[in-house]
Amino acid sequence: MTTRTGRHFLHIPGPSPVPERVLRAMDMPVIDHRGPDFAGLGKAVLEGAQAIFQTRSPVIIYPGSGTGAWESAIVNTLSAGDRVLMFETGHFATLWRQMAARWGIEVEFVPGDWRRGVDPAQVEAILAEDRAKSIKAVMVVHNETSTGATSRIAEIRKAIDRANHTALFLVDTISGLGSAEYAHDEWGVDVAVSCSQKGLMLPPGLGLVALSDKALAAAKTATLPRSYWDWEDMLKPNTGGYFPYTPATNLLYGLREAIAMLREEGLAEVFARHQRLAAATRAAVEGWGLEVLCREPSEYSPVLTAVVMPEGHDADALRTLILEKYDLSLGTGLAKMAGKIFRIGHLGECNDLMLMAALSGVEMGLKAGGVPHARGGVLAAMDALRSGIDD
Amino acid sequence: MTTRTGRHFLHIPGPSPVPERVLRAMDMPVIDHRGPDFAGLGKAVLEGAQAIFQTRSPVIIYPGSGTGAWESAIVNTLSAGDRVLMFETGHFATLWRQMAARWGIEVEFVPGDWRRGVDPAQVEAILAEDRAKSIKAVMVVHNETSTGATSRIAEIRKAIDRANHTALFLVDTISGLGSAEYAHDEWGVDVAVSCSQKGLMLPPGLGLVALSDKALAAAKTATLPRSYWDWEDMLKPNTGGYFPYTPATNLLYGLREAIAMLREEGLAEVFARHQRLAAATRAAVEGWGLEVLCREPSEYSPVLTAVVMPEGHDADALRTLILEKYDLSLGTGLAKMAGKIFRIGHLGECNDLMLMAALSGVEMGLKAGGVPHARGGVLAAMDALRSGIDD
Amino acid sequence: MTTRTGRHFLHIPGPSPVPERVLRAMDMPVIDHRGPDFAGLGKAVLEGAQAIFQTRSPVIIYPGSGTGAWESAIVNTLSAGDRVLMFETGHFATLWRQMAARWGIEVEFVPGDWRRGVDPAQVEAILAEDRAKSIKAVMVVHNETSTGATSRIAEIRKAIDRANHTALFLVDTISGLGSAEYAHDEWGVDVAVSCSQKGLMLPPGLGLVALSDKALAAAKTATLPRSYWDWEDMLKPNTGGYFPYTPATNLLYGLREAIAMLREEGLAEVFARHQRLAAATRAAVEGWGLEVLCREPSEYSPVLTAVVMPEGHDADALRTLILEKYDLSLGTGLAKMAGKIFRIGHLGECNDLMLMAALSGVEMGLKAGGVPHARGGVLAAMDALRSGIDD
Amino acid sequence: MTTRTGRHFLHIPGPSPVPERVLRAMDMPVIDHRGPDFAGLGKAVLEGAQAIFQTRSPVIIYPGSGTGAWESAIVNTLSAGDRVLMFETGHFATLWRQMAARWGIEVEFVPGDWRRGVDPAQVEAILAEDRAKSIKAVMVVHNETSTGATSRIAEIRKAIDRANHTALFLVDTISGLGSAEYAHDEWGVDVAVSCSQKGLMLPPGLGLVALSDKALAAAKTATLPRSYWDWEDMLKPNTGGYFPYTPATNLLYGLREAIAMLREEGLAEVFARHQRLAAATRAAVEGWGLEVLCREPSEYSPVLTAVVMPEGHDADALRTLILEKYDLSLGTGLAKMAGKIFRIGHLGECNDLMLMAALSGVEMGLKAGGVPHARGGVLAAMDALRSGIDD
Repeated sequence: MTTRTGRHFLHIPGPSPVPERVLRAMDMPVIDHRGPDFAGLGKAVLEGAQAIFQTRSPVIIYPGSGTGAWESAIVNTLSAGDRVLMFETGHFATLWRQMAARWGIEVEFVPGDWRRGVDPAQVEAILAEDRAKSIKAVMVVHNETSTGATSRIAEIRKAIDRANHTALFLVDTISGLGSAEYAHDEWGVDVAVSCSQKGLMLPPGLGLVALSDKALAAAKTATLPRSYWDWEDMLKPNTGGYFPYTPATNLLYGLREAIAMLREEGLAEVFARHQRLAAATRAAVEGWGLEVLCREPSEYSPVLTAVVMPEGHDADALRTLILEKYDLSLGTGLAKMAGKIFRIGHLGECNDLMLMAALSGVEMGLKAGGVPHARGGVLAAMDALRSGIDD
Repeated sequence: MTTRTGRHFLHIPGPSPVPERVLRAMDMPVIDHRGPDFAGLGKAVLEGAQAIFQTRSPVIIYPGSGTGAWESAIVNTLSAGDRVLMFETGHFATLWRQMAARWGIEVEFVPGDWRRGVDPAQVEAILAEDRAKSIKAVMVVHNETSTGATSRIAEIRKAIDRANHTALFLVDTISGLGSAEYAHDEWGVDVAVSCSQKGLMLPPGLGLVALSDKALAAAKTATLPRSYWDWEDMLKPNTGGYFPYTPATNLLYGLREAIAMLREEGLAEVFARHQRLAAATRAAVEGWGLEVLCREPSEYSPVLTAVVMPEGHDADALRTLILEKYDLSLGTGLAKMAGKIFRIGHLGECNDLMLMAALSGVEMGLKAGGVPHARGGVLAAMDALRSGIDD
Repeated sequence: MTTRTGRHFLHIPGPSPVPERVLRAMDMPVIDHRGPDFAGLGKAVLEGAQAIFQTRSPVIIYPGSGTGAWESAIVNTLSAGDRVLMFETGHFATLWRQMAARWGIEVEFVPGDWRRGVDPAQVEAILAEDRAKSIKAVMVVHNETSTGATSRIAEIRKAIDRANHTALFLVDTISGLGSAEYAHDEWGVDVAVSCSQKGLMLPPGLGLVALSDKALAAAKTATLPRSYWDWEDMLKPNTGGYFPYTPATNLLYGLREAIAMLREEGLAEVFARHQRLAAATRAAVEGWGLEVLCREPSEYSPVLTAVVMPEGHDADALRTLILEKYDLSLGTGLAKMAGKIFRIGHLGECNDLMLMAALSGVEMGLKAGGVPHARGGVLAAMDALRSGIDD
Repeated sequence: MTTRTGRHFLHIPGPSPVPERVLRAMDMPVIDHRGPDFAGLGKAVLEGAQAIFQTRSPVIIYPGSGTGAWESAIVNTLSAGDRVLMFETGHFATLWRQMAARWGIEVEFVPGDWRRGVDPAQVEAILAEDRAKSIKAVMVVHNETSTGATSRIAEIRKAIDRANHTALFLVDTISGLGSAEYAHDEWGVDVAVSCSQKGLMLPPGLGLVALSDKALAAAKTATLPRSYWDWEDMLKPNTGGYFPYTPATNLLYGLREAIAMLREEGLAEVFARHQRLAAATRAAVEGWGLEVLCREPSEYSPVLTAVVMPEGHDADALRTLILEKYDLSLGTGLAKMAGKIFRIGHLGECNDLMLMAALSGVEMGLKAGGVPHARGGVLAAMDALRSGIDD
């Protein structure tokens, strides 16, 4: 076994590696969150987050996690006994559904095979049948971190509109925001949920929600009990750059820096970079003769790629071997995918050579672990990266 | 006005200054919170936090704030319509009461003058009258951050016992833990609530709760809806050093280091240091001929000292002047104390000369602001510090 | 004894405390010093250093110390057997003289009592007598770090000119630059020597020299052997922002940030701040009934203040006690001042409350150490600081 | 062109990437280098450096660079007019020779083709002919950073002994120490020269020399002028952990940490790791059908590999392209190798996947730059790494 020296390669689909600029920005003395200097920070991150979500509606930033932001979306817009429409796109969609159930929400959960996103036509069909408009919300995961399949949010919005339905549209873009294209206002999303440790390139510790006028209106009548996650409490002090309770100040320093980095590169360039890296990763998987979990090319995730293990080989044994030999962390298969897949994250600050390091580690691991594969996936990835650059 | 150069002196009663060792510990790459390396970190902070709370019962650590930990205490132990006993010791007791009310809890709120802690005899009297045991919990703030008065938790426990009452004992030691003596098991507290940015010397972003068997039993039957804050979800993965959703990994790095620092110094020594600094601060206040807000010497806070402004002088004008001239942040008067007091924090990593810097800034500010006072409070503080050392 | 917790107060006359912005700027990956990105850094620090020296002539930056920069000044301008004029203003003048002697330079060393700077009239008198112009250089320490007395460089220049002498003017502004006013071109200095860890607020590790045309001309004919310190080797690559051998890249990152900070505050404001802090320190010394070592008010150092111990009391015993009890580092008495004085540094990022912390530590230490003194020096310092602000 | 995002890959043969542990260790407040806390640091680095050099003789640590340490070796042991034997193994041998000449040393410089190390037999032959023992020193570069060829120091020592010659043995192990095996005492070296930014994994800014009794004796009679580099001045305070002039304190913090890391891994393991990485790199070069500059397999450098460009292709054009497209820094060809070779550094904290990232960048660059090569060098490297692990 190799002694651990040098850089660890963190290629799970989040937390993603934190850029040194961001770490260093956080490594500064905490300031008084009620003092005059704080307002500039507060405004910078609240307005900057709007730019990343591509919205003019408010964004709320909690000390918490994406799971907390899920809860925020539910408790501010729904009431006990409300009916919602969700889709089994993977593990996180399933967990969000369980949370909704805990809050007394009645979830219509459309089964799925974890290998594709939500079918817009199916959304339209179900909503069209709901003539009583008893469905209060459609809740969709934008980028399923457990499978590497995205759902086509803009098309689902159109499906809802075609069905002429009043349901709120709640979207989990926890692992999408800042990596996969996401346009809150243009796509007509009512509540988008995200967090700090994926495309925003921060350590975990912040949950974010982007709202809409319709969501804010829903919050006026929603009756689930709430306090910590309450939007109204947040929005008033937020206008001045302040928070109703102590914010995670140093993570906000980091968020300010991360937003600056995303803007320097340009959101369009950030999204294109993720697409290139994802295409190169799939080229490698194909080169190894292995299968990408996601079956729908239009729904391939730019954030991560889940790889199906050959029958009779355990994905977690491979991951363990790769971690030990090459100090490379890959994502495990979750719930019913446990042992069957491993996931390669290529999000956040990932660049070509970071990806090549990861893919080299996978190829060496496949060999070391006796997993049947064709040699040279890394060459296919290099070809893909090159063509991506030169075109 | 002085140009801002050099160190800012942060003497609000939290967030407290973050030691460089702690900042540097956090300034490291994030790791996979589901990988094998994480377990050691998770166990270290969970067990270390038990040592700081002085408990053998579980401690839960959330990505969140103290406000979130308040919510955790309520939603895991109570049901809608439950009756609880609370005391108006200051602004934070009032806020916690408001939160309880939001969750449908019926709060008996004993009025107070914000200048002392909870009277144990009054607790006993009220509980003794509650023969039906309809009071489900007694909820007390250990160290009122808004006033600088502590409540005598151990004595309140005895009062509850003398009344032979079954109520849970929920304690907010948000600004007490790690600075003021707190002994969870010995004092018989059922749920203690705290956070990262006070005596634990971290940036904000973590909420903590320490439990008891009785609290865990109460959670089995409590019916408030909960998901993010749910104890049961936490406790199972915690036994292995893991968390059910993404923890705030880098803050946990810092927590591990901060706990190590508290242990190196020794908890008894940490508490004694805070007592010395508080005594010196009160000596300065007395030297200036001003009044300490807290009227009960046995309840003086070792964490902060609130100073009453002379009639006709605005505390916030003074604070602004001191911040501008001397780059010293003091705590504002909250709610009904606004403008009437300012608060001097002396918690966390504070040492003698950090305190003298702050007190010098206050004395210069009193003079510059035309606030009537006797010259030489700083000399009285130095005398107090010296006698504290040499005795 | 107090356990060490919280900030150490570093009030030696250098190294001075390093601002967090500067530390964080250095805490970044090293880059290729021959790559295209380096040139921007190199130019920024070379040009920025010119602004701090107030010169249009080249500044050279070495990996090294101020001692190395002393050597650079000697070996590039002088030849074995050359005669130079130096003055015993203190320990560092004495050490520089010893170095010159090691290189075979004949030093005329005018004795002094370590309590004042160089007398310009004496310079004029000696040079006027040197009709053969056999004196090749006048070498003066601008700010004697061992005594807290400055020499009036501009007036010495005039004295040289009045004597109509051709000698080079070499100035050690090791602890002066960036804290005490220094104007290289206006004052007509030929070689100025400095370093990173004083007014430039960096950790030690860089030596700097600022040149003049006359100095560059002298280097053409000077015959002392040299390689590492050779100016010509440096100046050619420096024009492109590069160095002939590997520079101390991360210290240069810090230098870039420190220069930015000095410019943000404004050099004039930086100098005025140091004067205020020095005046307040002297007020404290006078308040304690103690004596400032420097006897010439026009030569009081804005960088440090040396305090004479009362007869029969050992300065180093006091320093040790203060370090142990209050975690405050003061400067020791050097060479013949050992035990007789202690030195208080108030340079670099020092601000009012940092100074008050230090002076409080001294006053508490005088008391604890049984050193005869009047109580209340800190009050005098506060008065001085206030009048400095409000005027 | 790819926007720069994510990690830069620094694969020049020094400065090498600085581990985060080392950077963070340096990112701490500077302390008084004459205070009691410093002694522990000073002793730790001086003794630790002895362990890395594998010597019981003193090691001296300068604020400076490797170039300064070269100068230290010369000025402390030689006198003007002394005759020394050197070998043209590459650019750095040539520069060291030029430095010696500047100091008036008469250098017998044996020509070489820059593709191998020093031939021990030739050393023996030359020394054997020097019956007058007029050669005062044999000066050899251990690891030629400009060519990737090492010299066999232990064998050269034996050659000197076989010739029964009295010459001092001065060795430049600037880029060897901490990466390539080096055993100062066992190999009988008199002065070894090194620096911080190669195998010691620090930023540049420190020069080191390891001595021997014979070297110390030579210093007693050597007459070159010296002050900054003088050994005697250093050795006395060093025994107590102190330095005669201000040391580069924060770099010493880093050195302490880096030495700890080398010891944790184990020197033997560190050397073996470098050998594995070098072998894999050569496998890639061979895979591409390109030529390694070093022609003598027993002298392949474990630190870097220099690759010969095919005729008609410019190495620097390739390096520029690779830097722009893949954010990978490679070493340039120096002096007469300019444009003809590029150098791949694999030293310091380098691990398998960092190397694979670099090699992937080279292979993509060869393709993008139209440089004739065989596809799949990276596969050969992976095979080499795997066999290295599994054997």
